[in-house]
Amino acid sequence: MKLLKDRIINDGNALSENVLKVDSFLNHQIDPVLMKAVGEAFIERFKDTEITKVLTLESSGIAPSVMVGLKLDIPVVFGRKRQSLTLNDDLYTSQVFSYTKQETNTIAVARQFLSPEDKVLIIDDFLANGEAANALMDVVNQSGAEIVGFGIVIEKAFQSGGKILRDKGYRVESLAKIESMYEGNIKFVGDTE
Amino acid sequence: MKLLKDRIINDGNALSENVLKVDSFLNHQIDPVLMKAVGEAFIERFKDTEITKVLTLESSGIAPSVMVGLKLDIPVVFGRKRQSLTLNDDLYTSQVFSYTKQETNTIAVARQFLSPEDKVLIIDDFLANGEAANALMDVVNQSGAEIVGFGIVIEKAFQSGGKILRDKGYRVESLAKIESMYEGNIKFVGDTE
Repeated sequence: MKLLKDRIINDGNALSENVLKVDSFLNHQIDPVLMKAVGEAFIERFKDTEITKVLTLESSGIAPSVMVGLKLDIPVVFGRKRQSLTLNDDLYTSQVFSYTKQETNTIAVARQFLSPEDKVLIIDDFLANGEAANALMDVVNQSGAEIVGFGIVIEKAFQSGGKILRDKGYRVESLAKIESMYEGNIKFVGDTE
Repeated sequence: MKLLKDRIINDGNALSENVLKVDSFLNHQIDPVLMKAVGEAFIERFKDTEITKVLTLESSGIAPSVMVGLKLDIPVVFGRKRQSLTLNDDLYTSQVFSYTKQETNTIAVARQFLSPEDKVLIIDDFLANGEAANALMDVVNQSGAEIVGFGIVIEKAFQSGGKILRDKGYRVESLAKIESMYEGNIKFVGDTE
């Protein structure tokens, strides 16, 4: 998605070979017009499949997800991230380890919002090692709903998350796939020299 | 806003005289079409004022805020909630005590995303005791930006937050103002018997 890649080049900040900061349009400040375009790009990529629900994780996944939900007129559910959680039969839960924050969180989704009839598009802002995506996958699998695929805004293709999901047979559509971030130069998969 | 009040009556759950659960369309599962209508209602209420930025708090404030930002083509900033925070000169911070969770959180907004030239509409899902709204106000005041007003999806008018903000001279526009929730019956301000 050219608009998104251009924005990453212009306003993203590769802090190291692994860490990309996109706080000015996705993770802290949000550009709603870009998010609408991101949502439309996801819909275009998955136009051949039926989707009944979008599942994402708070907080940065919410804006692109809501744009998909608005256009398709379907609900969006966001998994809640908690450091500790009182056990509760009404919730599906799974564990997420954050490499950035070096901490384990529990994600929780209320059972009432995922049913075996649902066809779920999982959306997230980043796909790196796949920890968050795996936890969302786990939650959907517990519910018996079908995973239509993963819609990822930015995939760090040099980390293993995307490969793991694709090897499991899931469809993963990433709007910007980063091949490397050497010395602050962001290179996308498929870029020519 | 009739659409919102009807939805609260139909799908909200008054768990006690103080606690309203709206998890099925606002706080956990989101109805994006309703959020768009909520965003448009805020824009209508503030149509006589210039707004350059929307400020909200993660996570439930993001969906309505993004709808306002999309229509006005302005950025949305969401304050981050953290239980602990390493001091950082790049951030404006303020404290929020949550009565629901009985814990104090720090909210943080990067300085680069609020400037003295900004005219900020603060949006949040709930206004009860005003803890979150006060922290957002504090953050904007630290930045030197102007607060245009507060756009609240659901105000619990029987709690003090709205009165405190209005007494300070702020404009507070709440789309659903709840007068009482006695024995599960939700009554809005202005309802006739």
